[in-house]
Amino acid sequence: MADMIRIIGIDPGLRATGWGIVDSLGNNLRFIASGTIKSDATLDLASRLNQLYDGLEEVVHSYQPFEAAVENTFVNKDATATLKLGQARGIAMVVPARAGLKVAEYAPNAVKKTVIGVGHGDKKQIHMMVRVLMPKATFDSEHAADALAIAICHSHHRTSMVYRIAAE
Amino acid sequence: MADMIRIIGIDPGLRATGWGIVDSLGNNLRFIASGTIKSDATLDLASRLNQLYDGLEEVVHSYQPFEAAVENTFVNKDATATLKLGQARGIAMVVPARAGLKVAEYAPNAVKKTVIGVGHGDKKQIHMMVRVLMPKATFDSEHAADALAIAICHSHHRTSMVYRIAAE
Repeated sequence: MADMIRIIGIDPGLRATGWGIVDSLGNNLRFIASGTIKSDATLDLASRLNQLYDGLEEVVHSYQPFEAAVENTFVNKDATATLKLGQARGIAMVVPARAGLKVAEYAPNAVKKTVIGVGHGDKKQIHMMVRVLMPKATFDSEHAADALAIAICHSHHRTSMVYRIAAE
Repeated sequence: MADMIRIIGIDPGLRATGWGIVDSLGNNLRFIASGTIKSDATLDLASRLNQLYDGLEEVVHSYQPFEAAVENTFVNKDATATLKLGQARGIAMVVPARAGLKVAEYAPNAVKKTVIGVGHGDKKQIHMMVRVLMPKATFDSEHAADALAIAICHSHHRTSMVYRIAAE
């Protein structure tokens, strides 16, 4: 299991979708890049989804990851917010799938458990641990940091049973 | 306003997405085609979204519509169902957008009000009115019939104020 694998983690959102690229070699993690794709809130929904599609497609083409991981989260606030997130998440799943990548899904508590050791904890703890695990990591937004945490989670789980369970 | 316009209506769903193509010339409606794109429930989510993408892309390429309309509905059952619908809806919005089409959104009661005259009413009434308005219409599923109703709704509203309000 010592093959180098390049992973893209994606934290989907209609306003801002975070992405993070990580190389995983056994237990070693290497930060490659991260960023945030924003959609223009003054445009109509279809155009905003198209912006997310274009941005993610460019990242996938530029960095050529082998596998993708997306957080399986949903806001509980209201159905409208959940529907918006779902639409952005549809784009986050389909862009890597169309590039031929396997796309794994992880629940938020699985990401937390992998990155900070317990299934609960706040954003700050996650971002701190991303820096501890990959000192060279940089991120321009919370979404980008979350995307790196999702990529780290996938690098830990992809060869284990846990991955298969989490991905179902 | 007597330009002929070809419209695709889409009723998004993860399991089955309905589509309907209608030519609108002033007050005349002409049925062109309809169908249902199904995703394989045994596959992972990303692959299923990819199937919907491929299917819709083929329809758009084959029939070359000028404008698209998607129902802005959400299930209230639970957040998981709403998220699933959102993901399918993201694909339904982005495929026509990537082909350069404007994509309008209509609330379910706007569709009902246009097609059966009132903002409430059951599926059977809608399907009956689709047949009354376009006697040659055929559809292989409820989703395809709903998609035709959405296309009809758009043909009525696209040149009016109502369209601009409904699309916001």
